[in-house]
Amino acid sequence: MKALVYHGPGNKSWEDVPDPQILRPTDAIVRIDTTTICGTDLHILKGDVPAVDDGRILGHEGVGTITEVGPGVQSLAVGDRVIISCVSACGTCGYCRKGLYSHCLADEGMSGIGWILGHLIDGTQAELVRIPFADSSLHKVPAGVDDQTAVMLSDIIPTGFEIGVRKGNVSEGDIVAVIGTGPVGLAAIATSMLDGPSRVIAVDLDDNRLEQSLRFGATDTVNSSTPGWYDTLMAMTDGLGVDVAMEAVGIPQTFEMCTRIVRPGGHIANLGVHGASVDLPLQDLWIKDITLTTGLVSTSTTPLLLRLVEHGKLRASAFATHTFALDEIDEAYDVFSRAADTKALKVMLTR
Amino acid sequence: MKALVYHGPGNKSWEDVPDPQILRPTDAIVRIDTTTICGTDLHILKGDVPAVDDGRILGHEGVGTITEVGPGVQSLAVGDRVIISCVSACGTCGYCRKGLYSHCLADEGMSGIGWILGHLIDGTQAELVRIPFADSSLHKVPAGVDDQTAVMLSDIIPTGFEIGVRKGNVSEGDIVAVIGTGPVGLAAIATSMLDGPSRVIAVDLDDNRLEQSLRFGATDTVNSSTPGWYDTLMAMTDGLGVDVAMEAVGIPQTFEMCTRIVRPGGHIANLGVHGASVDLPLQDLWIKDITLTTGLVSTSTTPLLLRLVEHGKLRASAFATHTFALDEIDEAYDVFSRAADTKALKVMLTR
Repeated sequence: MKALVYHGPGNKSWEDVPDPQILRPTDAIVRIDTTTICGTDLHILKGDVPAVDDGRILGHEGVGTITEVGPGVQSLAVGDRVIISCVSACGTCGYCRKGLYSHCLADEGMSGIGWILGHLIDGTQAELVRIPFADSSLHKVPAGVDDQTAVMLSDIIPTGFEIGVRKGNVSEGDIVAVIGTGPVGLAAIATSMLDGPSRVIAVDLDDNRLEQSLRFGATDTVNSSTPGWYDTLMAMTDGLGVDVAMEAVGIPQTFEMCTRIVRPGGHIANLGVHGASVDLPLQDLWIKDITLTTGLVSTSTTPLLLRLVEHGKLRASAFATHTFALDEIDEAYDVFSRAADTKALKVMLTR
Repeated sequence: MKALVYHGPGNKSWEDVPDPQILRPTDAIVRIDTTTICGTDLHILKGDVPAVDDGRILGHEGVGTITEVGPGVQSLAVGDRVIISCVSACGTCGYCRKGLYSHCLADEGMSGIGWILGHLIDGTQAELVRIPFADSSLHKVPAGVDDQTAVMLSDIIPTGFEIGVRKGNVSEGDIVAVIGTGPVGLAAIATSMLDGPSRVIAVDLDDNRLEQSLRFGATDTVNSSTPGWYDTLMAMTDGLGVDVAMEAVGIPQTFEMCTRIVRPGGHIANLGVHGASVDLPLQDLWIKDITLTTGLVSTSTTPLLLRLVEHGKLRASAFATHTFALDEIDEAYDVFSRAADTKALKVMLTR
């Protein structure tokens, strides 16, 4: 088959590789019908994720059709159309029983699994992929849900919902600010609306992205490159700050913004993937009754999000801005990596 | 009357001052029967809390008898024996309605109140004290509860419970570590036991304090001055770390210990009063599903803690190690400030 193979920082190629095989009874092989590229893939290509070895097939999002199942697979069959969760999990360890699939303790040749696709095992930017623990790592797609909607449930929508909205405890009437309006920030905005906030303020440096955020449900926008941004935002919150501040960038500056705009008793939900430590001003925050959360998505909410998508309560297809054939993946990476120019959100790669 | 008056960093004196007066209809005047000294009072005397003015009467804990009430006081009368909450609150603003009394927005001559006693208004280390919003800032003491038990409900036991146990989400079967076993750390240990943890590990540099922690319910102790402390502690937790790490010191080193010993999906509850920012290793924690909380006690749980004390489910009197007359307060400060030598936990000052 063909697949996108990582060859160390800055190097990738769409090349011939052996087809994946069933290795364990609980595995399935999935033919990729639609996949996409994540900001994390760009981080890997920059060399920011040293655990990724030369020779690894990239990608952890996808929708496909099962072509083979191991004898231990219970609930899935050849021909089933499935969403591939970015997180693989055994479903039975102590963490899985708490719904924290991202910290699954099962041994898949490494100590604990979770996010391994396109990271520690071969991923979804390929014609075929092996999925371990298929029963708890794949979700059947309802007939009325198309691929470009379903693929958003591999990662970005569950991430925005679980790590932003649920951990941030977005509640009726809250004022929410989302700092960073890339795909995950937009997913957090879109899913925040499920919980009845009074205002959802999108904060970014890019006016185009701020404009897009209004389509996903933001009620207000603040361009944080303007000198008065802090006063503008505080004026939207009775001067107290926001109930929930979400960090969806992954750099110290945006984290620090969250610590400044959160009100006493409020929540900071970190969604960003950070490469460095940040300064936490505990001399100011110890007294403020702040809750700060971090997390990697567990995709435990994929079934409920699928129901919302199926019944038209959550519009997931708006994330797809560009479509390519799978073998045009180099061009797709180029468009996605220049999102500020190309206005790309999620690029679709289809069979 | 006599009172302990702050005269700038390093200076205090037990001196004659005018008796407090009812200033607002919702005020009460309380005669102090028992008061005590908090680590925060030592911070004020070092000059760490610049908001405290020269001339301020110190102290925010106490049990006493009401001698006068304003015409707006509904539920209290002259002669009632009461616990003085360290936090004063109106009971009706948006924050009070959420039980976050420490962020009360009422105007008591300043923007918002909360912890004002012995800070922004005169406190309890005196023969008499004025308590604003008496109905929501005082608690009647049941007849069977003595002063040295009741005074622990002014601050330390609600702080340990609300900011350590409740915000840390201590749950059945959890492994809890409390770093720092001063009075608030011990209160967190004692109240953790209410929620059925499997182990409560006390961590300190001082063997005497660790020994004391066993009397408050700790199941294990770790002296963090020993070279192998980290491995010892991790071996108590299946190698994954603790479910709940409580920081009860207030310095960067102990906060950093919490970030190292918490397991994926775990909680860090900050109880310490910090004077400096800390380094938060988000490059490690972003993926770990950590919840970090901060807070100033609201004393919203004082009624339920009083019930536990009254029915013998929580032994609060063990904190009182020394007793002095109110006019021996200088000696009491000396004993309390040399706790490592004197083994003082809470010093009682009685009428």
